[in-house]
Amino acid sequence: MPIYRAPVKDQLFILNEVLNIGKYSNLPGYAEATPDLVSAILEEGAKFCENELQPINYSGDREGCTRHEDGTVTTPKGYKEAYQKFVENGWSSLTSDPEYGGQGLPHVLGFCFEEMMISSNHAFAMYPGLSAGAMAAITIDGTDEQKQTYLPKMVAGEWTGTMNLTEPHCGTDLGMLRTKAEPNEDGSYAISGTKIFISAGDHDLAENIIHLVLARLPDAPKGVKGISLFIVPKYKLDADGNPGEFNNVNVASIEEKMGIHGNSTCVLNYEGSEGYLIGEPHKGLKSMFIMMNAARIGVGMQGLGNSEVAYQNAVEYARDRIQGRSLTGPKNPDGAADPIIVHPDVRRMLMNAKAFNEASRAASLWCGLLVDLAHKAETEEERQWADDMVSLLTPIIKGVFTDRGFEYCVSSQQIFGGHGYIAETGMEQFVRDARICQIYEGANGIQALDLVGRKLGANGGRGVQAFFKYAAEVRESAKGDDRLRPFTDALGQGLKDLQQATMWLMQNGMANPDNAGAASTPYMHLFGHVLLGLMWTQMAKVSTDALDAGTSDPTFYENKLATGRYYMKRRMPEIKALLAELETGAEDVMALDAANF
Amino acid sequence: MPIYRAPVKDQLFILNEVLNIGKYSNLPGYAEATPDLVSAILEEGAKFCENELQPINYSGDREGCTRHEDGTVTTPKGYKEAYQKFVENGWSSLTSDPEYGGQGLPHVLGFCFEEMMISSNHAFAMYPGLSAGAMAAITIDGTDEQKQTYLPKMVAGEWTGTMNLTEPHCGTDLGMLRTKAEPNEDGSYAISGTKIFISAGDHDLAENIIHLVLARLPDAPKGVKGISLFIVPKYKLDADGNPGEFNNVNVASIEEKMGIHGNSTCVLNYEGSEGYLIGEPHKGLKSMFIMMNAARIGVGMQGLGNSEVAYQNAVEYARDRIQGRSLTGPKNPDGAADPIIVHPDVRRMLMNAKAFNEASRAASLWCGLLVDLAHKAETEEERQWADDMVSLLTPIIKGVFTDRGFEYCVSSQQIFGGHGYIAETGMEQFVRDARICQIYEGANGIQALDLVGRKLGANGGRGVQAFFKYAAEVRESAKGDDRLRPFTDALGQGLKDLQQATMWLMQNGMANPDNAGAASTPYMHLFGHVLLGLMWTQMAKVSTDALDAGTSDPTFYENKLATGRYYMKRRMPEIKALLAELETGAEDVMALDAANF
Repeated sequence: MPIYRAPVKDQLFILNEVLNIGKYSNLPGYAEATPDLVSAILEEGAKFCENELQPINYSGDREGCTRHEDGTVTTPKGYKEAYQKFVENGWSSLTSDPEYGGQGLPHVLGFCFEEMMISSNHAFAMYPGLSAGAMAAITIDGTDEQKQTYLPKMVAGEWTGTMNLTEPHCGTDLGMLRTKAEPNEDGSYAISGTKIFISAGDHDLAENIIHLVLARLPDAPKGVKGISLFIVPKYKLDADGNPGEFNNVNVASIEEKMGIHGNSTCVLNYEGSEGYLIGEPHKGLKSMFIMMNAARIGVGMQGLGNSEVAYQNAVEYARDRIQGRSLTGPKNPDGAADPIIVHPDVRRMLMNAKAFNEASRAASLWCGLLVDLAHKAETEEERQWADDMVSLLTPIIKGVFTDRGFEYCVSSQQIFGGHGYIAETGMEQFVRDARICQIYEGANGIQALDLVGRKLGANGGRGVQAFFKYAAEVRESAKGDDRLRPFTDALGQGLKDLQQATMWLMQNGMANPDNAGAASTPYMHLFGHVLLGLMWTQMAKVSTDALDAGTSDPTFYENKLATGRYYMKRRMPEIKALLAELETGAEDVMALDAANF
Repeated sequence: MPIYRAPVKDQLFILNEVLNIGKYSNLPGYAEATPDLVSAILEEGAKFCENELQPINYSGDREGCTRHEDGTVTTPKGYKEAYQKFVENGWSSLTSDPEYGGQGLPHVLGFCFEEMMISSNHAFAMYPGLSAGAMAAITIDGTDEQKQTYLPKMVAGEWTGTMNLTEPHCGTDLGMLRTKAEPNEDGSYAISGTKIFISAGDHDLAENIIHLVLARLPDAPKGVKGISLFIVPKYKLDADGNPGEFNNVNVASIEEKMGIHGNSTCVLNYEGSEGYLIGEPHKGLKSMFIMMNAARIGVGMQGLGNSEVAYQNAVEYARDRIQGRSLTGPKNPDGAADPIIVHPDVRRMLMNAKAFNEASRAASLWCGLLVDLAHKAETEEERQWADDMVSLLTPIIKGVFTDRGFEYCVSSQQIFGGHGYIAETGMEQFVRDARICQIYEGANGIQALDLVGRKLGANGGRGVQAFFKYAAEVRESAKGDDRLRPFTDALGQGLKDLQQATMWLMQNGMANPDNAGAASTPYMHLFGHVLLGLMWTQMAKVSTDALDAGTSDPTFYENKLATGRYYMKRRMPEIKALLAELETGAEDVMALDAANF
């Protein structure tokens, strides 16, 4: 059975020393988030995830969700009880608006808890995860009445939410969607159509489920400019605002999936279900993107969360499993063999994962801070800067972190040899669960296109210029210290290569958009390396400062420097290959006729 | 439901034009393999795989194998009938020795059929696959009596075979194995112990199962020098050589695995089972390696087989699924959207897989030819050259082709978006099935160590020198033609980089063996790129020759050139990253104390 220990120490290092969140105590929510409170919350979160969620992760995968003959859906054994505790302990309201009963704590703190939830139980974490997306849309686009009707119950976790986008014939291209919304006389709408891949689409955890559904009004223009967003509760609310009559949101089936079996991915048939327009008619795509963007950073963190737990189990196994001898002579001479952690190729796989996990954790939490700053910073300039940066980083975090997260689940499974292929070690579950992250909330190819097609050029390139400026400042701050040379050197080269790739895109993507398309994924991964290299440089600088200041825990900081050096020296050179690949342009990619594949 | 079309045309291109097997008609088996016969056999093989094996692949995965209360094991619906046809149609004896009833056809032909079997049904293909390994050991190490007793039945497919290596506490490090062989009075041995991960360990396809089991004699020295190999039939043979009394080979359980559910991976308890020593006492490891080496090339081809079928389905989906518009304007203006094959990032994924599949097919079949030449070539010099080359290439084919094969199953699944994550498209099965190839028959990290630790230095580096010489000749033959410049340039650079990496290993691996260990996987993948680049250069040369000769099918050869250019220009640059990674040595890989992960 797999193990999990929440990385609280590393999260506190990032919050307190790298991001220095204490300096934002002038902002709402941050004032309350004193170091003691933050630490206490993370410790409690760790306990909840380790003791309540992790023990039902493997069993939940084996059992899966069940659709009963009467159309109701039940979650695996233990999920309902765990969800009750989740609600009772206040985890559902951690970062929500106090106006609706939330605790109003910083998002960056919520991100820490999110990572732990994913590591301990990805399928379970998706239930509140989807609620968060739905709440974001209601918060931004809902009327006051809608907010008062739905948010307090959702914040409290009594009700959950979903996002209903995909239909059998369209996912990425939402312009083709067919679900209809016919006006009723009372101002509501009758929603009819089939939605597929609806995560947390039905279950027994909450009293009601608030579906946010994309559909077309009768007078809707064709394509994406004719999509509206509707609130469709599973149960209509009675006069007191409590769940009443069933709203004809019928579960046609639960999808048979590769993984995340503990989450009920539903095919939902809306059959004249009562829905309420949210936001302006025909502008549902905008609201949908509000949900999606929040969700995309979350999905990026899922890449990290899966990689982290798979890595922890691989470390445990590599320390325990004795097999063969070290190439440099026995390290466990009294035993029949050495533990496999002595082997450089096992180390290589562990170091790849560790170096990614720690840097992607820093990047994710930085992003969490930026989300807060974009809303709460004192000046418009600061808010805009943070917003630009979040917009730019979102596709990179989603696309790169989930590709890498999957890769390190696979390599951590590999460390188990044949035992990793057997269900009971739990390693193959991490691989199957992590795989969805590369697909949902916009497949990673779409993230890459979003990056090169939208984000790079947005506002005249303001975001990417701000990134280069920020990275140059970080690098400058680390200069002149020999211990930091591997960091400043590799980051400097990475930035130069990223600049060259960006220039190439500007020059060649305009001339032939297929050049941008053919370059998009290598470019996104190139950017990902620079982002992680930047995080390592920041963490390395903090570490040398701590060592110079005579920290009482020098090993922690020395390990940071060693892990970071590994990343800069062994992972960053991949940039050269990505740059060469993208600079070949679209010609060879598009050379064949479609018939000739 | 997935589709599959055997790549007969491409296999014939490789056999007849690239490898030119007609020129070996002086060798046993090749004389019979006339172009017409080869073509007829491949067409028949394609029919069998497409019509009999592929249709039960998905259902076999869903159903899995069953261990009944009485300890017997049944395979999924349709497997037994398909196996009967497999035997009746003579597929089990295709390349076996005519002395034991085999057809004696070239191994290179058997390799073609093997690829088709894996693509159409990986789990099924493992039953005869394991028999082949067991037959190889009996052929080489068995006494005449043992050969006469077992081979005719196994060649005919009436009995199957297995390889029993792994025990719960040891897989890679066989020196620790504990299964005991106690001498009986009649010269046989009583075998007792538990073996795990035994593929095709029990089933209802054949009358008897001939287990080849590693065990220790009472006087065995410790470690790998005390392992002996035994033949242990599931049913002891009666006086007429027919299966009689049950031999106490008990199926404790069928492992719950990530994939290949149609194959019964068993935990076998030997309880005083009667076994017969094969080969010399304490030298079982040598015999085991005979089985393993044959099997390793086969497993490499499994990487290709899975990648090929996943790719074919991705192509089909990419041509059919309409979603979004081409970046360069509508390509299907009358439809609601364009097929997704118009998108460069979809093309990128398809081209990656296609360029790998075609070159790895060429490399595998070349290896099949080399296996034949190592046994049958006229001069000792030719046999030695072929044997050196097979030894060198085996770990590369196993390690690189299975890593890449898995990668392209994943990217082909990615093209399906959310639909790829749902079981019914069959894409996630390819991913789960392909995953085992990186693990079994020596995990890929072991392949990399075999390459740098054994194969490179074997016979004073004779194999790797022969490879460089051969590659230089191929490159030379393609020089001076502008159409081949992308090939000769990239191959030239690749060979230079491979030489540099090999030199680095020689200089630094001696000084500190951990340097070799830390470099092993990047080195193996670097070598893999050069091997595939070499194959593309050969195929490109053949293609320009055919075009110059006025072929009637110019599109075929032009597509070869375009696909090859893609590989040389977009994939080969990865070598630079691998070289930079390996040249950093072991220091950063080994920097942390084991306790600090």
